[in-house]
Amino acid sequence: MIITIIGLGLIGGSLAKDLRANGFATELLGVDANPNHQQTALELGLVDDCPPLEHACMKADIVVLTVPVNAILSLLPAILTYVRSTAVIVDMGSTKEEIANEIRGHKARKQVVLAHPMAGTEFSGPTAAINNLFHGKAAIIADQHDSSPEAVQLVERLFKSLFMRIIHMEAKEHDVHAAYVSHISHISSYVLSLTVLEKEKSEQNIFNLASGGFTSTVRLAKSSPTMWRDVFMQNADNVLDVLDSYLEKMQEFRTLIAEGKFEEVHRLMEEANEISKILTKNKRLQLHS
Amino acid sequence: MIITIIGLGLIGGSLAKDLRANGFATELLGVDANPNHQQTALELGLVDDCPPLEHACMKADIVVLTVPVNAILSLLPAILTYVRSTAVIVDMGSTKEEIANEIRGHKARKQVVLAHPMAGTEFSGPTAAINNLFHGKAAIIADQHDSSPEAVQLVERLFKSLFMRIIHMEAKEHDVHAAYVSHISHISSYVLSLTVLEKEKSEQNIFNLASGGFTSTVRLAKSSPTMWRDVFMQNADNVLDVLDSYLEKMQEFRTLIAEGKFEEVHRLMEEANEISKILTKNKRLQLHS
Repeated sequence: MIITIIGLGLIGGSLAKDLRANGFATELLGVDANPNHQQTALELGLVDDCPPLEHACMKADIVVLTVPVNAILSLLPAILTYVRSTAVIVDMGSTKEEIANEIRGHKARKQVVLAHPMAGTEFSGPTAAINNLFHGKAAIIADQHDSSPEAVQLVERLFKSLFMRIIHMEAKEHDVHAAYVSHISHISSYVLSLTVLEKEKSEQNIFNLASGGFTSTVRLAKSSPTMWRDVFMQNADNVLDVLDSYLEKMQEFRTLIAEGKFEEVHRLMEEANEISKILTKNKRLQLHS
Repeated sequence: MIITIIGLGLIGGSLAKDLRANGFATELLGVDANPNHQQTALELGLVDDCPPLEHACMKADIVVLTVPVNAILSLLPAILTYVRSTAVIVDMGSTKEEIANEIRGHKARKQVVLAHPMAGTEFSGPTAAINNLFHGKAAIIADQHDSSPEAVQLVERLFKSLFMRIIHMEAKEHDVHAAYVSHISHISSYVLSLTVLEKEKSEQNIFNLASGGFTSTVRLAKSSPTMWRDVFMQNADNVLDVLDSYLEKMQEFRTLIAEGKFEEVHRLMEEANEISKILTKNKRLQLHS
């Protein structure tokens, strides 16, 4: 199977590594707007060749889109004109609704599968690619009724070859859920980083003290601004809803502390502890996938 | 050296494990208000015996306090009357100023060293105790001028035996820094958990999608409410300052998204990326300690 990966970053590169290792891909073609990324991907052996976009699409059995979601919007129409009528195109962006709208009614719509593998790290670029990034994680396929059954089946085979759990949902529903379990985590990390960096200007040694707790809550603040700008743009309405809910609870926490109501603070934290049950359940799902 | 550990939880238990393994302690006595914790600590071999508080203090060369910070406030005066005049008492609470105030001018003040090992996990109780929890981490000693040089020296030896980096600062300064690099991380995790749990009530399958990013930002929401209630109570002023700064930046993020100013959102995230340089520097410090 010839697989063309458009976007040779963390996700595209990690996908290339695994699909080559497990034999799903017999040939891997890569395209990236950044010539340095193409060069690095070739040097690392992530892909076999980096032909021009049109050529890479024409040759492919599957075209995978792993670029920032605004680039997906702008590239998809051209890609649909380049690919063979038997090829399958799968986008792996972190938002789904605008992408679904962009290609609604397109004559090649049935060849496209909208997906989102819920996996990643805070690093970016082809050097960030790692093996087994997707193992046990959830792969969402959105609006499957708008894709041909054969296309969906092929993409499911691809995800299963990576040991992913497949979940079907509507694009709209995906975007709400992603705002809660992913997008807000990134914003809270970015904001934590900004808060502490501002203080650090006047307090040089504050970071000598950073422990594991700080490191893990601020980890996502290292993530790619371009990727996340696009996500927040396309999913602005849902992100604003979650932000409002988050800000309200943070304000409640603040008021309780300011008013000295520490038993109520205690109660809120006990409520928050409930997350551990759910994360354990989630971990079990991953282990048994 | 006979070491008495008051508070057989994550910190006290982990300390017991390492101080026995590295030979610093020849005998370990434990005290915990919860008889089940005492029983578990004995079964796990964390401590050799759990005598009554008075007896455990009288026998000790070093008394270590690893209970929630309000319990430190209430226990310290009694402990100071129980210990021998050659014993050293070290408190390991996450706040320092109120504890310093509590014993200011006490006739045994010089026997007390105020410390804070910047290490932990989100788990609690004696079963959470692990080896090497403190390795490479910062150990703060506060207000050392109020302790005898011999007492400070002994506590430094204890921390160095765990491969910790020792940092001296004033209690007041400690509490400001801890609010930034530790306390706010916990609040942001608790609030993230509450936000997502509320949504989950109506959306049962939202957690099927949780990925590594969510898991790491919400990890601290599993932490002990009692420990953190006490910390937020004692460090309320600094915590409120950090919260206000955090809320302001979160609000700025929200406004920029609502107004569609995504290039400014991009710029904020680029600023936030700077945290990676500092965390790398911090990691290097840990590796070379």
